[in-house]
Amino acid sequence: MTRIALDDFQALLDSELPLVEMFNMKAEEIGPGSCRMRMVYSPDLIRPGGTIAGPALMALADACMYGVVLSQIGRVALAVTTNFNVNFLRKPANTDIIALGSSIKLGKRLAVMEVSLLSEGDDELVAHATGTYSIPPR
Amino acid sequence: MTRIALDDFQALLDSELPLVEMFNMKAEEIGPGSCRMRMVYSPDLIRPGGTIAGPALMALADACMYGVVLSQIGRVALAVTTNFNVNFLRKPANTDIIALGSSIKLGKRLAVMEVSLLSEGDDELVAHATGTYSIPPR
Amino acid sequence: MTRIALDDFQALLDSELPLVEMFNMKAEEIGPGSCRMRMVYSPDLIRPGGTIAGPALMALADACMYGVVLSQIGRVALAVTTNFNVNFLRKPANTDIIALGSSIKLGKRLAVMEVSLLSEGDDELVAHATGTYSIPPR
Amino acid sequence: MTRIALDDFQALLDSELPLVEMFNMKAEEIGPGSCRMRMVYSPDLIRPGGTIAGPALMALADACMYGVVLSQIGRVALAVTTNFNVNFLRKPANTDIIALGSSIKLGKRLAVMEVSLLSEGDDELVAHATGTYSIPPR
Repeated sequence: MTRIALDDFQALLDSELPLVEMFNMKAEEIGPGSCRMRMVYSPDLIRPGGTIAGPALMALADACMYGVVLSQIGRVALAVTTNFNVNFLRKPANTDIIALGSSIKLGKRLAVMEVSLLSEGDDELVAHATGTYSIPPR
Repeated sequence: MTRIALDDFQALLDSELPLVEMFNMKAEEIGPGSCRMRMVYSPDLIRPGGTIAGPALMALADACMYGVVLSQIGRVALAVTTNFNVNFLRKPANTDIIALGSSIKLGKRLAVMEVSLLSEGDDELVAHATGTYSIPPR
Repeated sequence: MTRIALDDFQALLDSELPLVEMFNMKAEEIGPGSCRMRMVYSPDLIRPGGTIAGPALMALADACMYGVVLSQIGRVALAVTTNFNVNFLRKPANTDIIALGSSIKLGKRLAVMEVSLLSEGDDELVAHATGTYSIPPR
Repeated sequence: MTRIALDDFQALLDSELPLVEMFNMKAEEIGPGSCRMRMVYSPDLIRPGGTIAGPALMALADACMYGVVLSQIGRVALAVTTNFNVNFLRKPANTDIIALGSSIKLGKRLAVMEVSLLSEGDDELVAHATGTYSIPPR
């Protein structure tokens, strides 16, 4: 069972995480232990060399992990990242970026997730991230 | 010897990395294998709960690592992050964030760095990151 | 196409990596971009609390990554780990541990892999690792 | 104040972590939030190419982190690694390896540490690790 609806997750992002607007990020699907997000391409995202900057990709991956956690525990706003590790694999195309997140483990105190990032229309990974969220006591 | 001047590093950031303006990041010092940067506090940086969002801290740490690399190899714009790992340690205060970066190893192909992030005026770490940059063949 | 045969990979491990005997690790399957390994349970593997020690799991994951790399590039003994990240997810049972490795990206200079570790007979992950190997110029 | 004595820490390792004998690891100093350990060189530690295997270095770094944690919380055997990240920086010499660990943050539930690994007699790092231990409720 998915514990947060797609619209409720997007509303939480829109109202409490201004980065979501800065980076034009949208949740597209949320399931039990999974989340798909999109970052709409903009020239504001580039880094030296003209490709999308690493921190923009990291912001998308982190938001996607948040979706994965909340899909499992509901609207617990104060679930927070404790560790985040990312490998950058190839230069992203100047297109939208798609993030596909899934749960590796949901524990009582910690949740571990992974996220694959792809340039839209290409099936080779641009980056791969793993992360841990701390879940506050309830 | 420092291979890029502070002004030249900031000019590179300002002209080719729009995130630097979005996040209001400034290079404050650059030395041989070290860099100090600041992210000016803004309410646009918050996440649910009202503290500074993780990806804003990651953006600052990554820019600081870029400064550490360029301090050692000069203005090689296409040095790029290949791995980035961060531990979030405590809630940042709603103040400027200071990043202190230093070189762990400079090789021919890869450079490894670490960055400590602090809330200004507090000496306990908010986050600690390590990362690897790939250096293009010259 | 798999570029190293299972027997050749195990022979390389047996003759040049004494840890394989210390930890009683066996390659069970190798495919193009994948590898399955086993660590036979022994009381020598325990840590305080009586469960299998983290470094034993890390040794198995690292050997499994080596198999994934060599399955793609052949018997390049000097492919070496540059980054290794692991999340420990739950206490392993006192049984054999199975490692399932797969390629995330094979580049010219770097290969990125992930490995899932399971207690034999249980389908929940004990640990999950990602890693990067550096491939020497040929 | 150091919450575990050097001899007590070594005794805990010797009696409950057989890897310590396999890898011939010795605690040399323990302070409040710091630990120094040694792995005595042996040909059993090598990997293809004849240098010390990564997992042996990881085992030493992890044991050193355990020392750092216990130096701060006392003999809490069930403190366990939850995340471990390591960058391998250069080929170690075939000498003893020294690990220098220090606390990055001690929280109630999580402790974060870093460890520098060096070949004895050389002051350039062989590897650098960061890790998180989970502290059981008391």
